[in-house]
Amino acid sequence: MTGPPAGAADRRGDLVLVSGGLDSTTCLALAVREAAGTGAPAPLALTFDYGQRHRVELDRAAAVAGWLGCPQLVVSFDASRWGGSALTDAGIRVPEATATGGPAIPVTYVPARNLVFLSIAVAVAEARELRRVHIGVNALDYSGYPDCRPEFLDAFREAGRLGTRRGTEGTPVDVVAPLVAMTKEQIVRAGVDAGAPLELTWSCYQGGDRPCGTCDACALRARGFAAAGVPDPALVT
Amino acid sequence: MTGPPAGAADRRGDLVLVSGGLDSTTCLALAVREAAGTGAPAPLALTFDYGQRHRVELDRAAAVAGWLGCPQLVVSFDASRWGGSALTDAGIRVPEATATGGPAIPVTYVPARNLVFLSIAVAVAEARELRRVHIGVNALDYSGYPDCRPEFLDAFREAGRLGTRRGTEGTPVDVVAPLVAMTKEQIVRAGVDAGAPLELTWSCYQGGDRPCGTCDACALRARGFAAAGVPDPALVT
Repeated sequence: MTGPPAGAADRRGDLVLVSGGLDSTTCLALAVREAAGTGAPAPLALTFDYGQRHRVELDRAAAVAGWLGCPQLVVSFDASRWGGSALTDAGIRVPEATATGGPAIPVTYVPARNLVFLSIAVAVAEARELRRVHIGVNALDYSGYPDCRPEFLDAFREAGRLGTRRGTEGTPVDVVAPLVAMTKEQIVRAGVDAGAPLELTWSCYQGGDRPCGTCDACALRARGFAAAGVPDPALVT
Repeated sequence: MTGPPAGAADRRGDLVLVSGGLDSTTCLALAVREAAGTGAPAPLALTFDYGQRHRVELDRAAAVAGWLGCPQLVVSFDASRWGGSALTDAGIRVPEATATGGPAIPVTYVPARNLVFLSIAVAVAEARELRRVHIGVNALDYSGYPDCRPEFLDAFREAGRLGTRRGTEGTPVDVVAPLVAMTKEQIVRAGVDAGAPLELTWSCYQGGDRPCGTCDACALRARGFAAAGVPDPALVT
């Protein structure tokens, strides 16, 4: 890192945000398949330990990255210290699924989570000369979080371009969201097609040993597998 | 945090990014003075422990916040693990000051630092129902970092607006940079005028017991105090 920055042509590796859920695991499998097809190195899986109550996520993220042959970087910060979300604050109950896609943002919203995640991802990608950041957000079958929408991603790209050396040099870290316009059914099909280890994934917001089956994340997942006509391999005992 | 979010009128407290340097200390003193004038609570000082080699910053940030009567939140993450900067990587030498304001971005640039800092600040402000985030960046007498420029701040505000619940409700966390168009001389004068404890501040990029006097940060600071006709109180023994 003491010489001049590498040219864009040298930046072939990618970074994928991996939480261990269905969407990010599918996203990683798609990136792995693409890298294999172009001879690029395996993507770096970036996972955040942010004090989430569903700690099983972290084990699943490591298992998914390992299964797909990707190096993993875990970045820790304690979002529970700033509070404000049912996912990090044990004093706020995780609700059961209600109407999905409605206007209200549920209490499982973690303040500015994807803004923070993507910012750190761009920092890591710039420091390590990686080409792109992949994020598995989805704005169709989702919980209504504002930071999963395409308009947020567009604004974030511009902030990332203007706030980095890479951006000022005309080769910003690109941010891609290949699942953003897919239904959950399409995500399940894409994951199966790309060979994603969906049996290792965890979507439930609760911290139990088994998915609760009633939270918003469980409900969205179940509908996706049902619509795709695929049994959920994570529920096979 | 279980009821509906507070209305904008209830959000009177502010958050100030405080590194313990001249600029952020002046920024905090200005915010404290404004809060006292309006009867608002003292601002929350947010400090990042990101693995910087100039660890003395952290002590100075705590001292500054305490002296000004502000609560402080320290958020830790280890940017040295992603590397790429002389400020976090002991293998990269901190250079002596050269021409300032030139087109090159120096090796002391930390990849996407203010993007990460501001993202976490917005997250904390949203979680804690704080009104504004103040950042003491300056784009006149500075080291040429892209993430100190007004155009970056504008793009970041938009990303923060679109990526948060507050933004979708029409009351985004505002991001203000009161020093952005000031010279270092003007910052010194503003700090003295606002009663900032400049004797507690630390600007040097090195990790020594005393400022090195030769790095870019030391040189900018010295020129600012000299132009303002004020002795640097941090250099008085």
